[in-house]
Amino acid sequence: MSDNPSPVRVALLGCGTVGGEATRMLLGEADELAARIGAPVELAGIAVRRPDKHPELPQHLLTADAGSLVESDVDVVVELIGGIEPVRGWLLTALRKGKSVVTGNKALLSEYAAELAEAANTSGADLYYEAAVAGAIPLLRPLRESLAGDRITRVMGIVNGTTNFILSAMDSTGAGYAETLDEATRLGYAEADPTADVDGYDAASKAAILASLAFHSRVTAADVHREGIAGISASDIQAAKLLNRTVKLLAICERVTADDGTESVSARVHPVMIPRSHQLAGVHGAFNAVYVEADAAGELMFYGQGAGGAPTASAVLGDLVAAARNRVAGGRGPRESAHAALPVRPMGQTPTRYHISLDVADRPGVLAQVAQVFAEHGVSIAAVRQRDRHSTASLVIVTHLAADAALQSTVDEIGKLDVVREVVSVMRVEGEDT
Amino acid sequence: MSDNPSPVRVALLGCGTVGGEATRMLLGEADELAARIGAPVELAGIAVRRPDKHPELPQHLLTADAGSLVESDVDVVVELIGGIEPVRGWLLTALRKGKSVVTGNKALLSEYAAELAEAANTSGADLYYEAAVAGAIPLLRPLRESLAGDRITRVMGIVNGTTNFILSAMDSTGAGYAETLDEATRLGYAEADPTADVDGYDAASKAAILASLAFHSRVTAADVHREGIAGISASDIQAAKLLNRTVKLLAICERVTADDGTESVSARVHPVMIPRSHQLAGVHGAFNAVYVEADAAGELMFYGQGAGGAPTASAVLGDLVAAARNRVAGGRGPRESAHAALPVRPMGQTPTRYHISLDVADRPGVLAQVAQVFAEHGVSIAAVRQRDRHSTASLVIVTHLAADAALQSTVDEIGKLDVVREVVSVMRVEGEDT
Repeated sequence: MSDNPSPVRVALLGCGTVGGEATRMLLGEADELAARIGAPVELAGIAVRRPDKHPELPQHLLTADAGSLVESDVDVVVELIGGIEPVRGWLLTALRKGKSVVTGNKALLSEYAAELAEAANTSGADLYYEAAVAGAIPLLRPLRESLAGDRITRVMGIVNGTTNFILSAMDSTGAGYAETLDEATRLGYAEADPTADVDGYDAASKAAILASLAFHSRVTAADVHREGIAGISASDIQAAKLLNRTVKLLAICERVTADDGTESVSARVHPVMIPRSHQLAGVHGAFNAVYVEADAAGELMFYGQGAGGAPTASAVLGDLVAAARNRVAGGRGPRESAHAALPVRPMGQTPTRYHISLDVADRPGVLAQVAQVFAEHGVSIAAVRQRDRHSTASLVIVTHLAADAALQSTVDEIGKLDVVREVVSVMRVEGEDT
Repeated sequence: MSDNPSPVRVALLGCGTVGGEATRMLLGEADELAARIGAPVELAGIAVRRPDKHPELPQHLLTADAGSLVESDVDVVVELIGGIEPVRGWLLTALRKGKSVVTGNKALLSEYAAELAEAANTSGADLYYEAAVAGAIPLLRPLRESLAGDRITRVMGIVNGTTNFILSAMDSTGAGYAETLDEATRLGYAEADPTADVDGYDAASKAAILASLAFHSRVTAADVHREGIAGISASDIQAAKLLNRTVKLLAICERVTADDGTESVSARVHPVMIPRSHQLAGVHGAFNAVYVEADAAGELMFYGQGAGGAPTASAVLGDLVAAARNRVAGGRGPRESAHAALPVRPMGQTPTRYHISLDVADRPGVLAQVAQVFAEHGVSIAAVRQRDRHSTASLVIVTHLAADAALQSTVDEIGKLDVVREVVSVMRVEGEDT
């Protein structure tokens, strides 16, 4: 490094909540960042749709022409616009020209990570996206680098704050889904159109990114089995409470080994019942937490704010400093590695466990009939609890691990039994001993 | 990268529990590691004190001459011997010759990090030491890289498993310190000579490393205020329980801003009373957890196994893969940065809060006398609880933040008051609102 190193020139695409915080940090902490990087960082331009709508930003930096800004003399492109097109084209152009890219665009990455990584690898540019999953929590860098010598077997976590806020509130108030969603919208925890969050699309994109990194394979959002929380009722929450458990929407990425030794990846997002003593059960409101299991490291957990302007900007700036340091040092960060290329296992073949709560006729022989259905589907029962309730009785069953499809068809068939008045709640179970 | 890249040659110094696991992983997962790195890793030699005592290792790799192994044709030196000399000389030689170093040697780093970092920076070699703090938990890389664009204000955590095991056990059994230490020794959680753990030396080394990274400054173990757990009594634990709190040995590294705006670093290790609802209160046994606060990221927590052969080897291998990838890519990882060079604040001037539990005479005016002593020392009281107990009464006081020296002298003087029968427990308090 020379005494007067050239500045690292940065293009910022998009300047909403996160971009505004990132700009404030870049300009306000310029000297500190220069000292950490070994060269000054220079904000070369900010592309926004309507420059006249941003009186708070340095006017001479603003442009509506993101494409030209990317093509100009910049070293790093920070993209905070979101969505697929036209962003994909701009970032590919940047990477192919050897400019490093920092992005928080989970939709783009969960679909086009392979194409972007290839462009980065070919030109030797860096592609960083810590902000795309779990906001401020340093998670992707530990997965990609700290655990690079270990064998990750599972990544499981709360990666969507909106759904966690709603489920936390349902758990504490006993209220139903619809009214809790209304409340979350009113308080600003849910968007006017909450589909991406409550139907699990946002979490599925993040699961695809996590599974790809953890298992050195390519998993896209379309590969992720996805169920949202709209079907969760107050009685599901109540059933969980009775068992000293709670319901969370989890992204679960697992390495699954078949009987013949072949490996595959399971990536899924769905509501899960976990024990209240589980570490993820204590993660409330808009916080995120991700639990990682690796052969040598054992159990790890990462916890922090999953969204918001400043926390997400922290992740963006961390990536920007890394990319800038690599420029100054003449090197580059670790490449993406998808060498393992494990196939994705369909949900039906993924081993899961179910909790099933039934209202049944209060007469002898009911359990025998129900148990017979489980046996016919090859599903083993781990625990049963029966309780009388006037003319009906409640029957609660927790299974051992079985293929998800076998569990589904078991539940379907049980619902048709004469002795079963109602299937009160069906929920997958994680985080407890079998 | 060419199609047949040269192997990255590794020297391993020391082969105890961690080294043995690392060797097993290196040899057993060679193909997988080569795919991740982009070149094969070749174990060039293992230096052990007595080669004849290691029939489990490949004999042709063994040598008793660590110095010559370091000087031989190797690219990366992995050091797992521990202690200062002669290791310091070997690692300086390696770094000065441009060989990257991976080490878990907290004693060495907490004293000689500046010298080692300078040697690494001069030659352009990597110096990684994730295994030195909190075992398998990816903590140093997130501090150094992920949060590199943020401003860390505080790092606080449980970084010593032995003392956490002892305090957890005292909390759950109500037993005293001496008998719990005996039990920990019997179960293998404490060493035959437990001094380094129970007197806080181990945690102080880690605090020095954490403070240096978090605040871009140089903090050595000698700068860290250190109190161990040998003085913790069953009545301290009981006093904490009565307030729904628990006692933990914490390493606390803070950025302290004086009234005139000048900044300094406080680094300390001592027992602390924290609310049972605090996330660190739920960390039991030999687990470690570290809580980080940064301006933009907010609150983060990292949790996992803090010691043990396999978990620590996971951290070592992660660093080795990073160093090897940098060799293959022709770059290097981010340098140490001590540019902020903040001074270390003496403990007496560090703002802390105290919990003080007293047995006092049961008569009017006692609180007035006690409160007068606080006022004379400029210490503000946050909460008081009095309870009658036959002829004596108990008086529990929690203070607001004050300089530690002022709190100490307040306690000393209160102990001399006629109305005070006994100072039952004095403990610093963290993790609650003022």
